[in-house]
Amino acid sequence: MRAVDLIRKKRDGEALDDDEIRWLVAGLDGGATGRVEAYQWSALLMAILWRGMDGRETATLTDAMMRSGSVVDLSGIPGAKVDKHSTGGVGDKTSLILAPIAAAAGVPVPMVSGRGLGHTGGTLDKLEAIPGFRVDLGLDRYKSVLAACGLVLIGQTAEIAPADKVLYALRDATATVESIPLISASIMSKKLAEGIDGLVLDVKTGHGAFMERYEDSLRLAETMVAIGRGLGKRMMALITRVDQPLGLAVGNAVEVAECVACLRGGGPADLVGLSVELAAEMVVMGGRAPDLEAARALCRRTIEDGSALDRLRRVVEAQGGDPRAIDDPSRLPAARREVSLLADRSGVVHALRARPIGHATMLLGAGRSRVDSAIDPAVGVVLHRKVGDPVAAGEPLCTLLVNDEGSLDRASAMIRDSFAIGDGPATVPDLIVDRI
Amino acid sequence: MRAVDLIRKKRDGEALDDDEIRWLVAGLDGGATGRVEAYQWSALLMAILWRGMDGRETATLTDAMMRSGSVVDLSGIPGAKVDKHSTGGVGDKTSLILAPIAAAAGVPVPMVSGRGLGHTGGTLDKLEAIPGFRVDLGLDRYKSVLAACGLVLIGQTAEIAPADKVLYALRDATATVESIPLISASIMSKKLAEGIDGLVLDVKTGHGAFMERYEDSLRLAETMVAIGRGLGKRMMALITRVDQPLGLAVGNAVEVAECVACLRGGGPADLVGLSVELAAEMVVMGGRAPDLEAARALCRRTIEDGSALDRLRRVVEAQGGDPRAIDDPSRLPAARREVSLLADRSGVVHALRARPIGHATMLLGAGRSRVDSAIDPAVGVVLHRKVGDPVAAGEPLCTLLVNDEGSLDRASAMIRDSFAIGDGPATVPDLIVDRI
Repeated sequence: MRAVDLIRKKRDGEALDDDEIRWLVAGLDGGATGRVEAYQWSALLMAILWRGMDGRETATLTDAMMRSGSVVDLSGIPGAKVDKHSTGGVGDKTSLILAPIAAAAGVPVPMVSGRGLGHTGGTLDKLEAIPGFRVDLGLDRYKSVLAACGLVLIGQTAEIAPADKVLYALRDATATVESIPLISASIMSKKLAEGIDGLVLDVKTGHGAFMERYEDSLRLAETMVAIGRGLGKRMMALITRVDQPLGLAVGNAVEVAECVACLRGGGPADLVGLSVELAAEMVVMGGRAPDLEAARALCRRTIEDGSALDRLRRVVEAQGGDPRAIDDPSRLPAARREVSLLADRSGVVHALRARPIGHATMLLGAGRSRVDSAIDPAVGVVLHRKVGDPVAAGEPLCTLLVNDEGSLDRASAMIRDSFAIGDGPATVPDLIVDRI
Repeated sequence: MRAVDLIRKKRDGEALDDDEIRWLVAGLDGGATGRVEAYQWSALLMAILWRGMDGRETATLTDAMMRSGSVVDLSGIPGAKVDKHSTGGVGDKTSLILAPIAAAAGVPVPMVSGRGLGHTGGTLDKLEAIPGFRVDLGLDRYKSVLAACGLVLIGQTAEIAPADKVLYALRDATATVESIPLISASIMSKKLAEGIDGLVLDVKTGHGAFMERYEDSLRLAETMVAIGRGLGKRMMALITRVDQPLGLAVGNAVEVAECVACLRGGGPADLVGLSVELAAEMVVMGGRAPDLEAARALCRRTIEDGSALDRLRRVVEAQGGDPRAIDDPSRLPAARREVSLLADRSGVVHALRARPIGHATMLLGAGRSRVDSAIDPAVGVVLHRKVGDPVAAGEPLCTLLVNDEGSLDRASAMIRDSFAIGDGPATVPDLIVDRI
């Protein structure tokens, strides 16, 4: 087999055979069965972006990438293990809420998360805002924390889907990220290697999402559900809207504090609602409730009785973090300065664009413009008004949490521009668009 | 500037700016103005193959590739220097005939040629069948041989268009060869770096050509003519057919012998006709005749008076070859065995497919399946019948010149299959299809 012939085949719009796909993945970065150069893989990635891959090809690519590393065996831990994956949105912090809820409801949650890049944040960055919290556990620790706490929250290890690491770096440098088969294979190869029995997907759509168009989000959701089911996993997906940020907090420490507020029974209604809905899907998938209605009630009970918050405390402690930060948010990193942006007219918020808010928060230091940028856990934005809320001239729209004044003017201008205040009531579209 | 942004731009179907193209070429392989990785260039090449390049982009890419190395200054040699480039066909050996003719007619011919790959042969391989002939001259020797003989025949040196060498190797390994802008830029960057004032193109079309479809050949011809004219050069192109091999000989030594026969006033009519036509275009372009009619007569005179053959003798001697091999073809390498293939029925040759004959000759050892394969100058095929010729059962169709018996059966079968013998007269289409 020669890489050039397989590239030509895909270039000409043909489907690759299973053994061809496995040979290409095995040959990546000096694999045993044959050498495929990085420059050949990147040409192939562009050809895949151009020509696409059918369901069978995508499933085989996923499986080959998954098997490039360790596939964790969690059969020693009783019950169906269920994880959630979100394609990422501004202010999306549901993992820190729903994982403790599902765990408290009896569903073990083995969660391997990522870091933020560009305008979206990452679960790992948020977790690291908790003093001492370690996300770089080995697979043995991963299993023992899951067994002890019912949940575990780590980052991708070198053992999990190493082919994805190499391919993702190549895609990032060659403008071949935006391919639904490649996105699906990347996500699913890592998730399936975690040792899960089921996966709930939260596929974002709208202005603040990676995929802005509904049809693309739907296709991505359907592709991932098909891959997982084809490999014997329980799968479902919600398609949810991120035109405006989810909840009120955007940043790292400030998002952790908002999650704790939700687990204490407070928190913004949109964030609590979506977190409980996703947790309820996990609970049904994990066989801990007969239907969604019952699962929702069970999830809400874990908030009311404090058992979900207790799970969060326990996992923070098990992963080296300071559990006192959960009960006393003043122990989380705080910014030196708070700057409020005031409304310059009275009216109703008609739009609040998530993407520039994500970018502005990145500028303030909460996110990364490059993979290796350092981030500041203390900075961010707290919104006081969202779409549909009335506001009077002079009232605060939001508060910026600032350490580095250098980017303040630019970030302020971006955030101010992301608010559109108009006359008359605004329509607030449903957060959950579709269920697959 | 970032390579990934430029790849994305081309991927999305936009045209690249001139400074972007120059930056990409300069950054290739560790250039001074910024590093572009090979895997980024290969993704870009696939995006170019997909999306194309407009005339301005292609001209800028050509110019940047040309300027990646030395651009030879031949202004010290009087007269307009004119070269010919053929896109390559089976049995295409016109360079060895037309270069001495044009030189004898007073047009200096500085020719940088390539080697054969796959089913087509290369001028350098044919020249090297002449004992002692050196094609690896430096640029100083190149100029002095041209000044002394009126022609020079060398291979691409490291100084000429090094960016093309790197890009061609990448294209070859990533199935991105078949792009008209990339083919055009590759050919033209090398040809323009030779120091020429004008270029006659012989763009092949038909079953034996790299581009089989007429529309592709036309587009390739028009693209190259536009690039050259845009950079101030005299340009013209003939589009010529290679459904069947050109002339009767396919191989290396055997093709040299056929060229010598043509320069002695013999040789197959199709080969002589095309060589004289291309030489006449060069003579008009070089200002040595007022029109094609006069140029053709001048070219034929250089054959009749022996001055063209004398030019070949002189350049062979100047480049280290044995000029006696020109006058006595028995001094050229000869194969150990000759095998004739006989017609199994009587009739007329209706088709003689060039491509399998090229492949079979490669199998016999006359060509390369890989860039680094060794070749055997002595082996090849001599055709005794071409399209339109009558043949009786038992008469020879062709003779194979063989050293390695191992591939004989397969090569014989391929060549036999390439002949189609039918009843009634066959149409022989015109060799020259178009003039641009």
